[in-house]
Amino acid sequence: MYKLIELTSGVCAADGFFADGIHVGLKKEGAKDIAFIYSDTLCDVASVFTTNKMFAAPIAHFRAKGDFQTNFVVINSKNANAMTGDAGVRDIDEVLATCQESIVNPVMSSTGVIGVRLPKQKIIDGMKLFDLNAKNPHEAAKAIMTTDTFSKEKAFRVELADGSAFHIGAMAKGAGMINPAMATMLCFITTDADVSKEIMQEILDEVTVTTFNAASVDGDTSTNDTVMVFANKKSKTFHKEAFKEALHAIMHFLALEMVRDGEGATKLVTYKVTGAKDNHEAEVVAKALSNSLLVKTALFGEDPNWGRIASTVGASGAEADPKTLTISFEDLCVYKRGELLFDAAMEDKAAAIMKKPRFTISCDLGLGNGAFEAYGCDLGYEYVKINADYRT
Amino acid sequence: MYKLIELTSGVCAADGFFADGIHVGLKKEGAKDIAFIYSDTLCDVASVFTTNKMFAAPIAHFRAKGDFQTNFVVINSKNANAMTGDAGVRDIDEVLATCQESIVNPVMSSTGVIGVRLPKQKIIDGMKLFDLNAKNPHEAAKAIMTTDTFSKEKAFRVELADGSAFHIGAMAKGAGMINPAMATMLCFITTDADVSKEIMQEILDEVTVTTFNAASVDGDTSTNDTVMVFANKKSKTFHKEAFKEALHAIMHFLALEMVRDGEGATKLVTYKVTGAKDNHEAEVVAKALSNSLLVKTALFGEDPNWGRIASTVGASGAEADPKTLTISFEDLCVYKRGELLFDAAMEDKAAAIMKKPRFTISCDLGLGNGAFEAYGCDLGYEYVKINADYRT
Repeated sequence: MYKLIELTSGVCAADGFFADGIHVGLKKEGAKDIAFIYSDTLCDVASVFTTNKMFAAPIAHFRAKGDFQTNFVVINSKNANAMTGDAGVRDIDEVLATCQESIVNPVMSSTGVIGVRLPKQKIIDGMKLFDLNAKNPHEAAKAIMTTDTFSKEKAFRVELADGSAFHIGAMAKGAGMINPAMATMLCFITTDADVSKEIMQEILDEVTVTTFNAASVDGDTSTNDTVMVFANKKSKTFHKEAFKEALHAIMHFLALEMVRDGEGATKLVTYKVTGAKDNHEAEVVAKALSNSLLVKTALFGEDPNWGRIASTVGASGAEADPKTLTISFEDLCVYKRGELLFDAAMEDKAAAIMKKPRFTISCDLGLGNGAFEAYGCDLGYEYVKINADYRT
Repeated sequence: MYKLIELTSGVCAADGFFADGIHVGLKKEGAKDIAFIYSDTLCDVASVFTTNKMFAAPIAHFRAKGDFQTNFVVINSKNANAMTGDAGVRDIDEVLATCQESIVNPVMSSTGVIGVRLPKQKIIDGMKLFDLNAKNPHEAAKAIMTTDTFSKEKAFRVELADGSAFHIGAMAKGAGMINPAMATMLCFITTDADVSKEIMQEILDEVTVTTFNAASVDGDTSTNDTVMVFANKKSKTFHKEAFKEALHAIMHFLALEMVRDGEGATKLVTYKVTGAKDNHEAEVVAKALSNSLLVKTALFGEDPNWGRIASTVGASGAEADPKTLTISFEDLCVYKRGELLFDAAMEDKAAAIMKKPRFTISCDLGLGNGAFEAYGCDLGYEYVKINADYRT
C-alpha cells in the first residue's frame, strides 16, 4: 500500500527544512561544533527526554515553554549545559535572544561535558553566521558529534498508493553515557508529513521503547538524552502505519548505529530474549545482558564464555531456572534446558561467531511468552582510554 | 566490657579448627587449589548465599541437607560447578563420599569457571592427602584464590570482662563477578564462641548488609557467592555485642580487601550517601555510583569529573534534585545545592585526592535522613585484560 525509499539527505529530506554545521571554537582544529535545523514554516514538535533527575538546562528550558510551535533548533557539542542550574537556563535565553529575524520560539539542545557553564559568547557569535537557506545536513550531523567516530543519519521518502508522498529524515549522536531510559543522547527528526502533534507523540513514545530504549553502550543514562521530531506538514499527506514504519526504521537504524559506534566498541550484539514470564521480564534480562561488564569483556576477548550469560540471566532479578534455560550463539546452541552442550568440538564454531562484527545471542527462559531484543556492544581498552581522560 | 585483639591465624584462630591448602592440578605450576577447614568437634553452621537464580551446585547441595551439624568443608578453585545441573550435585556426592573417617556431614564450596563439569577425580585424589591435624590457614586462604592478587584473612580474640574469651577467624576470596546480593564470592568464618545457630544466623544476616553487600567490583552477581560461619562452641563463652562487633570488623575488612583487590583495581573508594529520602534510596544511589562505568573509568583516569557523579545520582532511580544535591571529594566540596563551586583553582586539589589509593566521595541529597556507604574500585585496562580472556 505504501513504500519506503531511502534518501541520503538526512534532516533536509523533508520539504522546507534547512540545516548546517559550523565551527565556532568549542572543538579544536576547525571541527564543526554547532548546528541548526530551520523550517521555513512553523512545526509541531514531539519529544522524549532523559529520565535522569539531573536533566540538563536545555531540557528544563524546553519544558518551561509549554505548548508551542517553532521553526528552529540550535545544537552545540562539547558542553552539556547540565548541573548549571538557573544560570544554565538563562544562558540559553541569552543565546536564543540573538536569533535571526525569521525565527520563532527557538529551542536549544546541548551535549558534552557536564558541570561547566556554556561558552555562550562563542555560540552567540556563531548564531549570526548561520545561513538559514543552507541544505547541509551532513555538516549538521558532524557538528553534533562528541566521541562518535562517524555521523549518524537516515531518511526516507514514503510513497503512498495514491501517488502522494511525505518524508522523514533524522540525525543523531551517541557514543558514551548511553543507556537511554527514554531517548538517547541526541536525535533530531524532521518530517513534512501532515501529522498531528498528538499522533506524532503517541507514535514516537511507542517506537522509542524498541529502538533507543533497547540500546546500551555503558549502562549510564545521560543528563541530556533528547529526541525531537519536527513536523511542518508541507506534504499535506499522512498515513499512520507508513509513518510509524518509517519512524521505526529510522530510529532502529540510528539506535544500532549508536551502539556500533559505542566508545571503543568493535562488535554490535543483539540479545534476543524469549520465553520470559512476560515482556517486562524479558526486557530486564536483555538489558542486564547488554550491560554486564563480564559479558562485554568476554565479547571483546571473543571468548564464548556462555557461563557469564547464564550467570547474568540468573542475577537479573527476573524469574529464571537453569532447568528451562536455553542459550545459543547465533544458531549454535551451547546450553539446553539443563544440558551442557558446549564441548571442545564446539569451541571453534563458537569462536568463529564471536569474531563477527555483528551477531545474536539468544536466551530462551522457557517459562512463558515474554520477549524483548536489546542491543549492546563489547567493552575494550579503548572505552577505558576514552573515559579515563574524557575532559582533557 | 570486652576487647578485640587481632590475631594472624585466620580460620585456625578459634580453638579446635584445622585447615590447609594443597595442589591437585586444577591450577598451573603447583599453586594450591583445594583447601579444607576441619573442626575436631561438630559445628553449627550459619550461611548466606547468592541471590543469583543460577546458583551453583554446591549451594543446591548445601540447601538439600536441611538442618545439620558438620565438621568439614572442602573448597576448590578454578571450577565453579555452576550450570552443571543434577550431574554437578552428584559430582559433589562422589567427592564427599571419599572423606576421611572422622568427617561428618561434609560440605563443599567451589569457585572458578561456570559451565564446566567438576574435575572430580583430581579432587578425590586430593581428599586423601589432606592432613586433618594441619594448622596452615594461610595455605588454605591461598588455595581458594582465583584472580585475587593477595589472600584475605582476618581473626580476633575477643576477651570479655570476666576473663573468658572466644575467637573468630575468617578467610575470603573475591576479585571479579563481585556485586554480592547476599554474600560475596566465598568467605569462611570459624569461631569457638558458644553461640546458638539462630543468633549466629541473625547476626550474620545483619552484618552482611553493610559489609559484603555494600561492596562491588563490577556489578555482576556471581552464581557461587557464599559466606559460612562454623561454630564449635569450644570456648563455652559468648557475648552478643562483642561477637557482632568482631564479626562486623572481620566482614567489613574482608569486603574492603576484596574491592581493593578487584580485578585491575588501583583505588578503593567509599561512596558516602546522606540526605536521601530513606536508607533504601541512599543504598540505591551509593551502589549506582560504585557500579557506574563512567565513574569507574574517571577514577582510573584520576579525573575529578564530578558531573558523572551528579549524572549517576540522577539516573539511579532515587529521588534527587540538583537544587539540594551537594558533592564532595573528601573535604573538597565541588557542588553545593545548585552552586557550581568547581573551578580551575580547585582542579589541582581535586586531582591530588584522586591520586590517593583510598578516598571518599560524598553525596548529600539534601532531602531526608537516609544514609548508606558503598565500596567500589576503579576500572582500567587490567580489568579488560583479565576478563577478555578469563577462561584461557
